[in-house]
Amino acid sequence: MSDLRQEANSLDREDELRAKRKEFVLDDTVYLDGNSLGALPANVPGRVADVIARQWGELRIRSWDESGWWTAPERIGDRVAPLIGAAPGQVVVGDSTSVNVFKALVGAVRLARGEVSGAASGEVVGGGGHPDEGRDEIIVDATTFPTDGYIARSAARLTGCRITPLAPAEVPAALSPRTAAVLLNHADYRTGRLHDLPGLTAAVHAVGALAVWDLCHTAGALPVGVDAHGVDLAVGCTYKYLNGGPGSPAYLYVREEHQARFDSPLPGWTSHAEPFGMHPEFEAARGATRGRVGTPDILSMLALEAALDVWDGVSVDAVRAKSLALTDFFLRCVEAYVPEGRVESLTPGAHAERGSQVALRCEGAGDVMKSLIERGVVGDFRPPDVLRFGFTPLYVSFADAERAARVLAETLDA
Amino acid sequence: MSDLRQEANSLDREDELRAKRKEFVLDDTVYLDGNSLGALPANVPGRVADVIARQWGELRIRSWDESGWWTAPERIGDRVAPLIGAAPGQVVVGDSTSVNVFKALVGAVRLARGEVSGAASGEVVGGGGHPDEGRDEIIVDATTFPTDGYIARSAARLTGCRITPLAPAEVPAALSPRTAAVLLNHADYRTGRLHDLPGLTAAVHAVGALAVWDLCHTAGALPVGVDAHGVDLAVGCTYKYLNGGPGSPAYLYVREEHQARFDSPLPGWTSHAEPFGMHPEFEAARGATRGRVGTPDILSMLALEAALDVWDGVSVDAVRAKSLALTDFFLRCVEAYVPEGRVESLTPGAHAERGSQVALRCEGAGDVMKSLIERGVVGDFRPPDVLRFGFTPLYVSFADAERAARVLAETLDA
Repeated sequence: MSDLRQEANSLDREDELRAKRKEFVLDDTVYLDGNSLGALPANVPGRVADVIARQWGELRIRSWDESGWWTAPERIGDRVAPLIGAAPGQVVVGDSTSVNVFKALVGAVRLARGEVSGAASGEVVGGGGHPDEGRDEIIVDATTFPTDGYIARSAARLTGCRITPLAPAEVPAALSPRTAAVLLNHADYRTGRLHDLPGLTAAVHAVGALAVWDLCHTAGALPVGVDAHGVDLAVGCTYKYLNGGPGSPAYLYVREEHQARFDSPLPGWTSHAEPFGMHPEFEAARGATRGRVGTPDILSMLALEAALDVWDGVSVDAVRAKSLALTDFFLRCVEAYVPEGRVESLTPGAHAERGSQVALRCEGAGDVMKSLIERGVVGDFRPPDVLRFGFTPLYVSFADAERAARVLAETLDA
Repeated sequence: MSDLRQEANSLDREDELRAKRKEFVLDDTVYLDGNSLGALPANVPGRVADVIARQWGELRIRSWDESGWWTAPERIGDRVAPLIGAAPGQVVVGDSTSVNVFKALVGAVRLARGEVSGAASGEVVGGGGHPDEGRDEIIVDATTFPTDGYIARSAARLTGCRITPLAPAEVPAALSPRTAAVLLNHADYRTGRLHDLPGLTAAVHAVGALAVWDLCHTAGALPVGVDAHGVDLAVGCTYKYLNGGPGSPAYLYVREEHQARFDSPLPGWTSHAEPFGMHPEFEAARGATRGRVGTPDILSMLALEAALDVWDGVSVDAVRAKSLALTDFFLRCVEAYVPEGRVESLTPGAHAERGSQVALRCEGAGDVMKSLIERGVVGDFRPPDVLRFGFTPLYVSFADAERAARVLAETLDA
């Protein structure tokens, strides 16, 4: 057995998270695509079967109350909250990431302009205020996953803003008193580069603008610290490192100090202060509930709730430590096995700049990934020439990392 | 046995849809709340178990392609289409009804104003055009389910329109060349009154405005005929008469002739012409796909797909005929059993003005409904004084209708 295989086995024996792997349904595939779709937590099938057969099939309409369906968005939001460093009452689950980006950005522009009237529960949102129309710019991460950019353009068009796409490093120099909101990704979906959330948030605040963060590629893989770092609003999906299932509901974080003035562009009946009053006038609910819109999607939402059970007893710091150890080790294995010049890592070497994936530039990456998948190593391909390997610390082992690098070398050799 | 019980049994024996009842999970409850949450179709649990265990658990990321996840919104949209009288390619499933109302209304205002540039696939949406800013009014059904009104206000605020709430009957007289879009409910959620979709749509068109219909309370209960009657855009939920499960995805209909210029305020990566190209500029997909936004919610969506199997071989005309026979019979039983003056029907007697529910005004309706539920008859209560009974022709029997009226009389007598 090679030295690296022995080292992998040794690292796996010492891994304090190793017992978590048994809580997922896995086979002998090396699954490094958890940054796109997390593996199935073993308790999900049974939970969903009960939701369908008993809660829907037997209790039917009574489950909105008796099975806790109605309060699921806030309850599950409070399960996500500690994973992103949020105190309870600030996260609500529902809708897609794209829809939540829209709520967050339009809400951020209105907050930055002081457009709303400090509407607490019982007051009608939308009246009064002294709009600061001078703030007419949304800055958006030019390297973002595209949907954020599309939605940002729509939010800008509907609020009378111009849009400025910039690489995150260029943002501080471009900020001005005209800036209303800045939408940034915590990690770049293509390269895996981790951006400086505390520093960029502080720079945005220095000009009186609001920072909206997309946490899709970091929540569940490393500490985010939204409360500690003063993040204003944040969104994220739950189907990557949170393993909620295909297209599971996203979440919206609205910092507590902004909640009373958060004025969503999608005010639905479930974000009303008294949803069953059926009032013709909208009065926003208090707290995270204000981020809700329509009837929550219960089957997907309760599958997510079951999936979050795997986080019981897990420290996000331990997850981060293992994530860095895994990606370090994978890069070492790649360097040892793959002939020089065949791949180039786009992922920063410095830990402070690395998320939980490794992106390798590689000629013919699309075909290479197809071969890798045939050989039992699943990552994904992002055009034009990037191989992505996501490392989910709860179920990826060091042996997986070694095997992936070895099979990559064999594939390139073939 | 009373004459009405004998008549109920006779009507059930002659019911051409009676075999459908076996395709649902039912018990000895009389379930008349299918207009809020449809009963569980018997094939859903097995289908969802397969989606979770095999498609997610074993195939994982490959299922986006191999299990048809990616194309589910359009494929399931085409299953909903015949139920609302739409030819294929015009309906897409996803998001909540509220979110779809927002897409439809903002899209309708832009279409009415000619704001967009005839953006077909390959052209960037949002440039050019000759805005007809003179159209600055959205008319909304004042008796609507509240979320439609809240979203309409938000759409108006973001597009510079004023909002005019009116009862549907008052709409024709109020229409003017300033009207951009009109949002109406096909059936009133409280009274069950069916509105004149063909007549109102024609009136809206006569002033050059667009008609957006909310079909939540009619799709699956009666023929809608969106294509035949020139409806411009429509939305609806799938968890009432379509039995998709709690909070199952809603749908959006965009008439084919409007699709090339439909300019959604929520342009996400999945409505892009080339979603995996990861282009920074948005280019809208062709057809119904343009109504998509974010990653589709697969578990809920495929539960809905299974639920729609119960419509195989069902004629919507037969459903409508049974629905009217059921509500007629229920009203006769109520008249026969319930002492005069204790309840008053808010649901029109004329078939042309009736949906598939009966609403009875009743003193102490909240407590009366609680007692009914304890006695095995499940309807719901809408403040301040309305008992609602929904009749889902696929699984409600005439014996159910007779028993519900009898138990109502006993409850009021107690």
